[in-house]
Amino acid sequence: MAAHQIINVKWLNTLNSQKVILASSSPRRKDILSNLGIKYVVVPSTFSETLDKSLFSHPSEYVKENALQKALEVYERMKIAGNTPDLVIGADTVVALGSEILEKPRSVQGAIEMLSSLSGSSHMVYTGVTLIAPPKDGSNNPRIMTDVEGTEVRMQNLSRELIEAYVDTKEPMDKAGGYGYQSTGSLLVKGINGCSWNVIGLPASKLFFMLEEFTSHK
Amino acid sequence: MAAHQIINVKWLNTLNSQKVILASSSPRRKDILSNLGIKYVVVPSTFSETLDKSLFSHPSEYVKENALQKALEVYERMKIAGNTPDLVIGADTVVALGSEILEKPRSVQGAIEMLSSLSGSSHMVYTGVTLIAPPKDGSNNPRIMTDVEGTEVRMQNLSRELIEAYVDTKEPMDKAGGYGYQSTGSLLVKGINGCSWNVIGLPASKLFFMLEEFTSHK
Repeated sequence: MAAHQIINVKWLNTLNSQKVILASSSPRRKDILSNLGIKYVVVPSTFSETLDKSLFSHPSEYVKENALQKALEVYERMKIAGNTPDLVIGADTVVALGSEILEKPRSVQGAIEMLSSLSGSSHMVYTGVTLIAPPKDGSNNPRIMTDVEGTEVRMQNLSRELIEAYVDTKEPMDKAGGYGYQSTGSLLVKGINGCSWNVIGLPASKLFFMLEEFTSHK
Repeated sequence: MAAHQIINVKWLNTLNSQKVILASSSPRRKDILSNLGIKYVVVPSTFSETLDKSLFSHPSEYVKENALQKALEVYERMKIAGNTPDLVIGADTVVALGSEILEKPRSVQGAIEMLSSLSGSSHMVYTGVTLIAPPKDGSNNPRIMTDVEGTEVRMQNLSRELIEAYVDTKEPMDKAGGYGYQSTGSLLVKGINGCSWNVIGLPASKLFFMLEEFTSHK
């Protein structure tokens, strides 16, 4: 991978002199954040995604809450340790078919069924993003910004043979929705409508402009 | 980068036992082709892109012809050397704003103007793809398949300050249209409609299904 360029704008220069934390160990999220020229340290969140999905009116609300809880857990843990970060970035991504949230497949058969349900139609990928920074005044409450980006993914018509051969690669087993858009799963996707980086784990451009707004109001 | 998975389907197994040539040295094209599980050797085309654009009714026709000429040049050169390949993959990508084809910027000022013209609106990226294989019968004419994929790219509203800072990274200078979607330029793009790999240099899924069709009729 080529060395990452860094855009020479004031707010980003300031941010890059601070303690910025990515609350995720996803290699794809790290790549996307590095592409944006943001310097960060990874501190994976220990928040377990056990929220009751039925409490949320829409998958986009569910990922926003997961992103918030992931970022908050890291912020609070570091604060308690006397190592308060200047900024924490949290994110969560889900695949939704209509109102149903698709998790990682639990079995080979489950992966085949999941991909069969996606074949020949469109689904949505939502990524929630939360930014957290220490309060400006003397209050105890950190500053928080949360947003969500949705991207439509249109799948090819997939034959049973192709689905089974793809599942055989084992790539689906650790991926929400049962496919990896950034690797072999790229062959399954006819096209998308929205931010393609969002499908991989972070809405690159939206995050860049969120960071500009959030840090400019510090 | 993780090891590339290979889909276990018959036509791909056959193809991977053959002499497959990618007529392009683009690192992005290599990555996309590897993601698809295709084994290949790079032989860059020496065809120079000097076709008269005014002869073509549409940018998509221009890239198709460039892709064809690139692949043909490699096929013929290897054939003359007594090293005829089983398959050559050629590709060409252009950025089009309306009917105007945007080249690589020729200067810093040109890059600023190009990005200013793209700011806040949509443009198209076209990639032409050509497959060439030896004739099945005794004829002298190789078998050829050519297609083109178009992807709409929607740019953010870009401030003059941001455009200048991005141009300062020098990333625009060797990129058609003046931005790199796969790297720092990701921050400029609000969203796309179509195949995002196409913007980077090869329409992954379309190419996979073209290869299946082309090799199955061999």
